[in-house]
Amino acid sequence: MKMIRTGAEYRESLKSMRPNIYMSGEVLGRENLPGTEILELTCELAHNKELQHLTTAKSHLTGETINRFCHIHQNEQDLLAKQEMTRVAARMVGGCIARCMGIDAMNALSVITYQCDQVHGTEYHQRWLEYLKYWQANDIVGCCAQSDVKGHRKRRPHEQTDPDLYLRVIEKRKDGIVVRGAKAHNSFAPLAHEIIAIPTRFLTPEEGPWAVAFAVPGDWPGVKLVCRGARYRDRVPEVASPLSGKGEIESLTIFDDVFVPWERVFLCGETEFGGQLALLFALYHRHSYTGCKPAMSDVIMGTTALVAEYNGIEREPHVRHNLAELISVAELVYGCGIAAAVKSSKAPSGTQIPDVVFCNVARKHAGVNLYHEYDILAEVAGGLPATLPYSEEFASPEVGELVKKYLARKDGVSPENIYKCFAWISDLSCSSMAGVMQYAGVHGGGSPIMEDIAILGTYNIEEKKQIAKFLAGIQD
Amino acid sequence: MKMIRTGAEYRESLKSMRPNIYMSGEVLGRENLPGTEILELTCELAHNKELQHLTTAKSHLTGETINRFCHIHQNEQDLLAKQEMTRVAARMVGGCIARCMGIDAMNALSVITYQCDQVHGTEYHQRWLEYLKYWQANDIVGCCAQSDVKGHRKRRPHEQTDPDLYLRVIEKRKDGIVVRGAKAHNSFAPLAHEIIAIPTRFLTPEEGPWAVAFAVPGDWPGVKLVCRGARYRDRVPEVASPLSGKGEIESLTIFDDVFVPWERVFLCGETEFGGQLALLFALYHRHSYTGCKPAMSDVIMGTTALVAEYNGIEREPHVRHNLAELISVAELVYGCGIAAAVKSSKAPSGTQIPDVVFCNVARKHAGVNLYHEYDILAEVAGGLPATLPYSEEFASPEVGELVKKYLARKDGVSPENIYKCFAWISDLSCSSMAGVMQYAGVHGGGSPIMEDIAILGTYNIEEKKQIAKFLAGIQD
Amino acid sequence: MKMIRTGAEYRESLKSMRPNIYMSGEVLGRENLPGTEILELTCELAHNKELQHLTTAKSHLTGETINRFCHIHQNEQDLLAKQEMTRVAARMVGGCIARCMGIDAMNALSVITYQCDQVHGTEYHQRWLEYLKYWQANDIVGCCAQSDVKGHRKRRPHEQTDPDLYLRVIEKRKDGIVVRGAKAHNSFAPLAHEIIAIPTRFLTPEEGPWAVAFAVPGDWPGVKLVCRGARYRDRVPEVASPLSGKGEIESLTIFDDVFVPWERVFLCGETEFGGQLALLFALYHRHSYTGCKPAMSDVIMGTTALVAEYNGIEREPHVRHNLAELISVAELVYGCGIAAAVKSSKAPSGTQIPDVVFCNVARKHAGVNLYHEYDILAEVAGGLPATLPYSEEFASPEVGELVKKYLARKDGVSPENIYKCFAWISDLSCSSMAGVMQYAGVHGGGSPIMEDIAILGTYNIEEKKQIAKFLAGIQD
Amino acid sequence: MKMIRTGAEYRESLKSMRPNIYMSGEVLGRENLPGTEILELTCELAHNKELQHLTTAKSHLTGETINRFCHIHQNEQDLLAKQEMTRVAARMVGGCIARCMGIDAMNALSVITYQCDQVHGTEYHQRWLEYLKYWQANDIVGCCAQSDVKGHRKRRPHEQTDPDLYLRVIEKRKDGIVVRGAKAHNSFAPLAHEIIAIPTRFLTPEEGPWAVAFAVPGDWPGVKLVCRGARYRDRVPEVASPLSGKGEIESLTIFDDVFVPWERVFLCGETEFGGQLALLFALYHRHSYTGCKPAMSDVIMGTTALVAEYNGIEREPHVRHNLAELISVAELVYGCGIAAAVKSSKAPSGTQIPDVVFCNVARKHAGVNLYHEYDILAEVAGGLPATLPYSEEFASPEVGELVKKYLARKDGVSPENIYKCFAWISDLSCSSMAGVMQYAGVHGGGSPIMEDIAILGTYNIEEKKQIAKFLAGIQD
Repeated sequence: MKMIRTGAEYRESLKSMRPNIYMSGEVLGRENLPGTEILELTCELAHNKELQHLTTAKSHLTGETINRFCHIHQNEQDLLAKQEMTRVAARMVGGCIARCMGIDAMNALSVITYQCDQVHGTEYHQRWLEYLKYWQANDIVGCCAQSDVKGHRKRRPHEQTDPDLYLRVIEKRKDGIVVRGAKAHNSFAPLAHEIIAIPTRFLTPEEGPWAVAFAVPGDWPGVKLVCRGARYRDRVPEVASPLSGKGEIESLTIFDDVFVPWERVFLCGETEFGGQLALLFALYHRHSYTGCKPAMSDVIMGTTALVAEYNGIEREPHVRHNLAELISVAELVYGCGIAAAVKSSKAPSGTQIPDVVFCNVARKHAGVNLYHEYDILAEVAGGLPATLPYSEEFASPEVGELVKKYLARKDGVSPENIYKCFAWISDLSCSSMAGVMQYAGVHGGGSPIMEDIAILGTYNIEEKKQIAKFLAGIQD
Repeated sequence: MKMIRTGAEYRESLKSMRPNIYMSGEVLGRENLPGTEILELTCELAHNKELQHLTTAKSHLTGETINRFCHIHQNEQDLLAKQEMTRVAARMVGGCIARCMGIDAMNALSVITYQCDQVHGTEYHQRWLEYLKYWQANDIVGCCAQSDVKGHRKRRPHEQTDPDLYLRVIEKRKDGIVVRGAKAHNSFAPLAHEIIAIPTRFLTPEEGPWAVAFAVPGDWPGVKLVCRGARYRDRVPEVASPLSGKGEIESLTIFDDVFVPWERVFLCGETEFGGQLALLFALYHRHSYTGCKPAMSDVIMGTTALVAEYNGIEREPHVRHNLAELISVAELVYGCGIAAAVKSSKAPSGTQIPDVVFCNVARKHAGVNLYHEYDILAEVAGGLPATLPYSEEFASPEVGELVKKYLARKDGVSPENIYKCFAWISDLSCSSMAGVMQYAGVHGGGSPIMEDIAILGTYNIEEKKQIAKFLAGIQD
Repeated sequence: MKMIRTGAEYRESLKSMRPNIYMSGEVLGRENLPGTEILELTCELAHNKELQHLTTAKSHLTGETINRFCHIHQNEQDLLAKQEMTRVAARMVGGCIARCMGIDAMNALSVITYQCDQVHGTEYHQRWLEYLKYWQANDIVGCCAQSDVKGHRKRRPHEQTDPDLYLRVIEKRKDGIVVRGAKAHNSFAPLAHEIIAIPTRFLTPEEGPWAVAFAVPGDWPGVKLVCRGARYRDRVPEVASPLSGKGEIESLTIFDDVFVPWERVFLCGETEFGGQLALLFALYHRHSYTGCKPAMSDVIMGTTALVAEYNGIEREPHVRHNLAELISVAELVYGCGIAAAVKSSKAPSGTQIPDVVFCNVARKHAGVNLYHEYDILAEVAGGLPATLPYSEEFASPEVGELVKKYLARKDGVSPENIYKCFAWISDLSCSSMAGVMQYAGVHGGGSPIMEDIAILGTYNIEEKKQIAKFLAGIQD
Repeated sequence: MKMIRTGAEYRESLKSMRPNIYMSGEVLGRENLPGTEILELTCELAHNKELQHLTTAKSHLTGETINRFCHIHQNEQDLLAKQEMTRVAARMVGGCIARCMGIDAMNALSVITYQCDQVHGTEYHQRWLEYLKYWQANDIVGCCAQSDVKGHRKRRPHEQTDPDLYLRVIEKRKDGIVVRGAKAHNSFAPLAHEIIAIPTRFLTPEEGPWAVAFAVPGDWPGVKLVCRGARYRDRVPEVASPLSGKGEIESLTIFDDVFVPWERVFLCGETEFGGQLALLFALYHRHSYTGCKPAMSDVIMGTTALVAEYNGIEREPHVRHNLAELISVAELVYGCGIAAAVKSSKAPSGTQIPDVVFCNVARKHAGVNLYHEYDILAEVAGGLPATLPYSEEFASPEVGELVKKYLARKDGVSPENIYKCFAWISDLSCSSMAGVMQYAGVHGGGSPIMEDIAILGTYNIEEKKQIAKFLAGIQD
């Protein structure tokens, strides 16, 4: 498996990238950014023998074994494996696994470039296939820049006072195009080798310049990543955890008049496919959510069960009811992800597409229950995650023994373990990281109102009206 | 397909049964009971060419084509087909399809009789196989009498003041057993050829007499069905519907010292299998719910969409949001039913068993949302279902024209159709039938609290705690 | 207190009214209509010495003691007394007390007629005062006909294909006006001496004919009541209850070109006051809901607690949690009704007006929780209310003893009491009456979406934005 | 008003206190602690002429005008004024106003010391009155240390392995007592002049040592405050807000064998009053919540409305529905706080006590809706609060103009204001401060399950059962 990077190789690969990350008044390179270890893990997992049945796949282009995060889904089994891989991996980092965006965008491009070529006689699919070979040969970590900054929310792209509020083509040249605009909420973009940009919404015929999809390296000229990071609080070694000091990073990715050569352009002006590409990426990404969101529920559920045990209340009916609630959220979402694979279909390009309705009801259900899950954890944990002394006091010669004495819970659990449990809950649910996860839970992959739109746009309500008419005795 | 009854044959078959139905002060036979047409339909559907791929199956005993309601599931596809059949059929009657209980009990018996024989050297499985042949050869309509009347809810069977409050064996004879007790909530029992009785809960070792399963004909000596019926309101012909005057029937099924010959006894004293049988029937029945409950949502959804259209508000955001809610309930439940089949397993007896967690989160989700679905329909319909003039006034020479005039909604919809629409909503959501459906939605197949118990009894919470410990840095 | 009718006097007073009630194909007079006993009770309560501090008031016109259902609120104490009276009385009938509509309409007219006169120089207020004297002198039972049938919901009155779909003036004469139209959901109208008609929504300047308010006797020429009734099921005497066979009645009240003399016309063409009158009646009626809706919660709560006791599960945590939920709904609604009185204001006419926001958040909260309350009762009661044998079988020589035996619950509760308890739950939550109560709970006095509109139309959101700006550091 | 401190005087008063604050490995004095400005504000408001009708009161001891935060409620008006003051003040700091705990404890002590003296012939009330004079003469900022650390949650104080896990008396001397233990979640304790310690739960007769209440200065020998702080992120001056860099502080307050002279001991061994004191403090504190929690809803509501306006979606139905939801939460809670004052009663000591049920249903409603309110804000704001560039980039010469360009929303709103708006939302809902507020919203003043217990312990459920029995026809 020579083409699958190790974590160390991934980390090494970042060093040569041009510093174009603007954060806290500095311009940074890619060393020591929060979130690096998550993407390292996505590489390492492909070398983990127990998980390779999930984390690797056979390239349909070359037949070689590749990291599944570089794979185009060929059948139901691929979708099931990707969903399961996502759940397993996300549990290990206690949150977003960061690498699905790139491959979700690649799968969407595989379908849409093909269909666009059929209709318009373009040659996007072949270009994209070449680009895919490059991805698979180099085990690329990619991200997807989709969400435009959008300005006035009730105006279309071409109605904005500033036309750049949706990313657009400002010049077409013989050798390529020049694009201008910015993509918001571009999670983990500073840690990606490649940024894939795609449209964010349906486009009208006059919105050709906004119907653009392409890929550029993350440090390409004109690309500026304005970033915000969050990290879990550091702890003294006595009570450290694998996540202490680790975190994640978000980017406002600005395309400041960026030149893109034609071989990296996958859509340019075909407005109807702009909207389809936006929706199809969202669909793949929502399918990814049917893996990662149950993982988040697993993490909250396991943590709730653990603190209940330490508190001595694990058999209390309200705790058990709450655990059943968390299980229900996790498995309703996961179960519908399975159903989405079972009811998937094959696109003309050969790519497997999950069922729209099952993906969307699952993602919606995850989103509307997200805050409620944190509520459950807070309720069962009690107030301590908000008021826990810092680890320096846990280890303090002056007050450390008192802190340990007064943290005691169930007999037989060491003060260190009690402290670690509550410090983790504080990290998980009462920190700036928690805030980011909450927003991601509501909006990542589409907010609940977007799922409503996707559901209603697809679902056969007329058939259901016919059932009602039949039962009511209405013939017309 | 000679052994598949037609509806007419089914109706005919009821005539010869002994009158043992006690209702409204009378002792009735089986002609003209409410609900008859539902069971007729389950027969007719097996003759419907477009649906036979769902409604028939190949007997694993004889290889002959049979009504799927007499079939033992052999694989994932059987479970998927049964789920889909249930959804399709339940839509046609606007509610419970009435025949799943019997076959769910038979599937549970197929597994448990086998396992019991393995452990105890009994011969229940062979007896049951003979009984199954009779079922399949005669296209039997069966029902399952499970819920004991239970007396004081916090006491076990053997702790009740009256030991008969859970059905029990009061005598073992050479040729059979004598049982005494009563089973509540025995829906459609008066319309079944056969009643299968099974335990309702886990049993302790001293509760041998209560660990009993058997089958008797519905009119067997000593069996008394104390019944309650509900019917949709009749309407004048001008505005009649397929359901006008139709309904359903419930039974308190009393076993007044009933003799059961050994060849119809499938468990007698093996307490640990009593509880397993109770749970396994519940599991199959909850899987049936993943078909019928989405059908109920389909009916409520279609009706909501229809009345919104007639009211001229179908594009209003709150209506669309409500429809998305109904779709979400339907498809989360249905999707997890699919997942339950995909993750099913094969019992030693060869019978396919759906996944416990997916079945239970699905059934629970249906149950906790049930009243909310009626709430949505009521909200969108407005108050008219509660205040609609009777059909006699619609057709009245004196006030009929005025009633028609003032019922007008959207242009182009006839007064008849408007009336039928609201009369159907009144039937569906504002009638004694509606009340029965609401209670059935909460308790049928197990109330939400029973699903919590089933989920928590099965789910691997410890694995989730380990995830939490790993993330918290706890090693122990 | 000579002018306060007794129940018998009320019942007697109905006899002389002209039969104009169309129901089930018959034209009926007012004897033996379902709901009569409820209005009788409103008369009797004013003679109940323990409740007279609530149920009577001193007329601000004459100083004489009158039934509070004929009183115009003069101060905060009147509003508090009316709220408490409503809760107390509604508990006694297990639902709607039926007589608030009339007095709510009269209070609204007291304010609006005065204000209209100030602006338009009309003389509505004096007319209305004369009418009020008649009311108080004769202890009138009134009802309010507000909800027009409304046709296409997205069209205004003057935009309907048929202009009569909102009640309107079709002719003005020297001696009065002629009106045409129909009012829906006119609960208990057949049992009212007087029907007060008022507009149902805001009106635009071109909608003068629809800006009409007036009162007519219930049997006035041209008035036709097309009715629908519901009754609790009758029971054999052995297990009868005070409500057995009792019920309620709804009317589609048609004004088939009805002449109204000027002295009974209280608004005619002043469109801006049409809308204000609609809103103000709704406000008074929502304040009434802060009394009757907690009473409904009391009834559901008491019934839930009783059946939990009989079932032996009253100390179970989930039951206690459910009871706390029901208490919370009841008292949040009731508490805000109190706050609405405390924050009430005095209109120029001297009438006391409750606070808009508190009335509306209270009514909304009641409405959105209504189905959930029935869900709780169903969950705690178990399935028996849907499957309970009829009372004829309870008393049957053949199966009565068996039915009694198998109904047993907690020791020491007689079979009669167990039966009555479940029969009452069946009446309350699993009957056509239950359906009517559910629709009334959602829509009576305004559906939740109407409360949103009333809240948002009144609330000072700008002030809250200023708080946000201050905290954000925004100056503009 | 010489005895009412100014903010500057308050700040000055902290300087002389002994450093006993352990945070992040340091021992700190009281300068520059986060939260100082909140308590300064509580002083300043008493000098604000427009608010003095709320923020000052006349001492019932001396007749002098004092800060209301030092006042013992004498009547309904005092309760109403305190509630309104709390809402007004909490809005100004965007959260907890920090000073109610102290005065809530003082009010509870006023009642319980009196009642204990009546029963036990003790002299706590007189002592407490002397202490109150000191408070009022010195405008003391107090806090209440109630929540014991509690160890194993299912064990009573005397059942813990370590008896110190509930604060207790370890020695009684002639001149006073020595106490040992720790109080958790002691918000703002480092900023209080005085710490009042009271029990946290009902106590059994053998738990005399745990039935202790007293007050000590915050820097008293043996008192150790182990603290955790949170601050809003600092911003560059260009986009600063009044809250930038401000925050709050929590304390684990350890009583490391602390001597308390008798004149500061208000309960010592009278176990039944230990529990009553715990409950009564909770009651006053929940009444405070009926002021501060609506303020939090005001802040979230105003912020939601502001960002909706900037986003151009303020008229969208889902936004308006969400605002109505937030209003409903705020005003249901506030309205029931009013009702709690209206239905308050006077204790034998002369202190006014708010109604238990209304306070508890209000606090519970606030708690169960808390996370949902953040969910609404997150939904309407979109993802930007989680991904907003830091203010250094907003002001950056290199990328500042690009950041401003791409933040644009509605025309006419400056980039500064847009930035401030989203930075505030990030502070409010996506930061460690937000996490603390969420936990405080669930647990502060008692978690929802504690309100259930308080409600069920007080409410007359039997009366409601009698209603049910009457309606069911049950006589017993």
